[in-house]
Amino acid sequence: MIKHLRSAADLDAETATLILDTAGEMAALAGREVKKLPTLRGRTVVNLFYEDSTRTRISFEAAAKRLSADVINFSAKGSSVSKGESLKDTALTLQAMGADAVVIRHPASGAPHRLASWVDGSVINAGDGTHEHPTQALLDAYTMRSRLGRIAGLRVVIVGDVLHSRVARSNVLLLSTLGAKVTLVGPPTLVPVDIAAALEPSTEVSYDLDSVLPDADVVMMLRVQTERMQDSFFPSAREYSRRYGLDVPRMRKLPEHAIVMHPGPMNRGMEIAPEVADSSRSTIVEQVANGVSARMAVLYLLLGGKA
Amino acid sequence: MIKHLRSAADLDAETATLILDTAGEMAALAGREVKKLPTLRGRTVVNLFYEDSTRTRISFEAAAKRLSADVINFSAKGSSVSKGESLKDTALTLQAMGADAVVIRHPASGAPHRLASWVDGSVINAGDGTHEHPTQALLDAYTMRSRLGRIAGLRVVIVGDVLHSRVARSNVLLLSTLGAKVTLVGPPTLVPVDIAAALEPSTEVSYDLDSVLPDADVVMMLRVQTERMQDSFFPSAREYSRRYGLDVPRMRKLPEHAIVMHPGPMNRGMEIAPEVADSSRSTIVEQVANGVSARMAVLYLLLGGKA
Amino acid sequence: MIKHLRSAADLDAETATLILDTAGEMAALAGREVKKLPTLRGRTVVNLFYEDSTRTRISFEAAAKRLSADVINFSAKGSSVSKGESLKDTALTLQAMGADAVVIRHPASGAPHRLASWVDGSVINAGDGTHEHPTQALLDAYTMRSRLGRIAGLRVVIVGDVLHSRVARSNVLLLSTLGAKVTLVGPPTLVPVDIAAALEPSTEVSYDLDSVLPDADVVMMLRVQTERMQDSFFPSAREYSRRYGLDVPRMRKLPEHAIVMHPGPMNRGMEIAPEVADSSRSTIVEQVANGVSARMAVLYLLLGGKA
Repeated sequence: MIKHLRSAADLDAETATLILDTAGEMAALAGREVKKLPTLRGRTVVNLFYEDSTRTRISFEAAAKRLSADVINFSAKGSSVSKGESLKDTALTLQAMGADAVVIRHPASGAPHRLASWVDGSVINAGDGTHEHPTQALLDAYTMRSRLGRIAGLRVVIVGDVLHSRVARSNVLLLSTLGAKVTLVGPPTLVPVDIAAALEPSTEVSYDLDSVLPDADVVMMLRVQTERMQDSFFPSAREYSRRYGLDVPRMRKLPEHAIVMHPGPMNRGMEIAPEVADSSRSTIVEQVANGVSARMAVLYLLLGGKA
Repeated sequence: MIKHLRSAADLDAETATLILDTAGEMAALAGREVKKLPTLRGRTVVNLFYEDSTRTRISFEAAAKRLSADVINFSAKGSSVSKGESLKDTALTLQAMGADAVVIRHPASGAPHRLASWVDGSVINAGDGTHEHPTQALLDAYTMRSRLGRIAGLRVVIVGDVLHSRVARSNVLLLSTLGAKVTLVGPPTLVPVDIAAALEPSTEVSYDLDSVLPDADVVMMLRVQTERMQDSFFPSAREYSRRYGLDVPRMRKLPEHAIVMHPGPMNRGMEIAPEVADSSRSTIVEQVANGVSARMAVLYLLLGGKA
Repeated sequence: MIKHLRSAADLDAETATLILDTAGEMAALAGREVKKLPTLRGRTVVNLFYEDSTRTRISFEAAAKRLSADVINFSAKGSSVSKGESLKDTALTLQAMGADAVVIRHPASGAPHRLASWVDGSVINAGDGTHEHPTQALLDAYTMRSRLGRIAGLRVVIVGDVLHSRVARSNVLLLSTLGAKVTLVGPPTLVPVDIAAALEPSTEVSYDLDSVLPDADVVMMLRVQTERMQDSFFPSAREYSRRYGLDVPRMRKLPEHAIVMHPGPMNRGMEIAPEVADSSRSTIVEQVANGVSARMAVLYLLLGGKA
């Protein structure tokens, strides 16, 4: 088993599949009302968050607590970090305090890699800059497999600001490893042709959402970062929504079996219409539940838990 | 047993009495140094706080932890909520993460009702706008019963800004259900005649604190929200304190057995004199302790714990 | 055993030695992968922090959780405290909620003493103003004893803004109790001659760091509070670093066996050079680990845990 999860590229097909299988076991136990496992009793998981992300933080917190780990939340705001302490000194501090795993969210791409070089415990990337968010890709893959029975061969369309999306990046890497075929869609300024090739040669790019929908098994809508919409390369909200938003007429172009995903939180009415978000094709709520199972699996396997 | 506690009106006399009896058992166990019960082991309680209220949050947190539940604190500040996520999407997220109960504090009256329509778990109102705060009413009723032996027939005087007080509102409802007789006292602008009738027909209103004290079994002083004192309908601090503050001469007008309550935190010297707050009539500290017992009882019963 | 740890002066040599011995047992258990002890199961430890100090807070949190206590974090920011609630009312509230121990960090010197007069539980000073930080002194003493085999007879040099340092103050008191000899070094405005005498008559003062290094067993560098550097009595950063910073040439003046300590977080390049901080003489990371063991020992002994 790998020690760290810094990037979806840390996962080969075998390891990724083991994590998905383990997530399935965790979900099955929860379904049988076995909500607390003793596996990580006495282990300490630190949530080291340099950016606010309550959603991701509580998903990891719930996952760790269900495995009976002790969880310590470390918000970098107002900490000695804000007094100028380096990431390295923070890392050595957490290490010395006995952290068995550090879950890190950081605005700088690559921070988890540096962290992993300084600590003995496991490092789990919970989102670093515009770089990666590998547990999101795992929960997405788990969701696709649950709904559609397989990942290999699926045609997955990812729509939005791919350029700045760590969710897109991690999904492209993991889905390619698992044999799915990814098409990236969005405004040309936000989906440069070379980004796809740089990530994974088999990835395709399209600027016309309507043309790719009829062949899709999965459409994954990315969240629009409204703070980016003031940038000159970003279309107006109205234009964006008209060309790349998923509304009901567009949803009807999908094959019968296709599903609609979103990592949340959604901008209802912007990248996704409320009727689409609440339709039976939507897996948005399942994704959240699967997030806890997937993170339980990652913590369990990386920390060397035995059943 | 009810599933949610959104309002004191959710409680009929039988249910309210069961909660008070259970709170008594919780307090008795704590008194015998049985501080940790396994009842809610593996259950997750989320504290979803859209307003700061450390006092109420840690009371619920202590209650849930004594019942061995896992507690996740979700402060809406700096979360995706502040990025515009709707309460509904937050609710579905918490639900998907496996929250068995959501304790919600929200500035909008009625938010707990809406939340309860979206989630499978139990919703407990920890204060919504100027609407209700039902666990405060339960701990107050528990305190009255502990000190005075009964609730039915008690004459309870509630003093202050009744118009904006969720504490007053929940107390009027619960006390009426349990057979006490409530008199509301305060400046006419803050205790409109029709508010009493609207809440509960048997409630009386008075604008003269001195005249009602000799017949009171309980005087409950409401906290003055100092931020409201700039409103034009609010008397000056000095005028308020002179007419509606509980000082020592006023306390002497009470019958021998009467008690003085306050939900905290107090403005000593404003609505209550320090000597009154620290007198043997005062139940203010007991109310805090009883708050943990009452919230343990609510969590225990709503989550279907068996002894 | 003492009930409170408000000051290093609360500790006589016997008690201090028992705490250090117990910390050693805690560290040994952790080294044998016994990371969770049932000792404080059902006990509640409240971290009452009126100042941000993530580092100290999570050290206490980790310590309490390893002893199976329930931990409640109470940050005074945004709480009723910020609405003007007095420390006394907060204390009575925590007490009523059943806190067995309150760990307090407060900007006002003496706050833990006042707190201890109001509550039944144990009070542990986690830093009060410029006054004391006794668990820091305990972990420092533990670190010295681990590295050098004893404390009695050691020559300890403490360097920096002694006047405003609670770390220095607690160390002077505890080290004197345990028979070490302390020399305080820093700019004359920050190390007045009478401060040493007032603290402990045997303490010496020097304004010349180079002259005292050859005889030192321990050099403890204090953190420069950069916010104080604007004060007129503070030398410029450059001047401070040149005269009182520990760089490699100065480190070479130390005896072979001498160690370098720092309470963290460091200003690398200001009071300590990076090469010194990362050298094998440096105990900075060990101090953090020892902090958890020392705080476990304090909680264990003050709360009357039995093995």
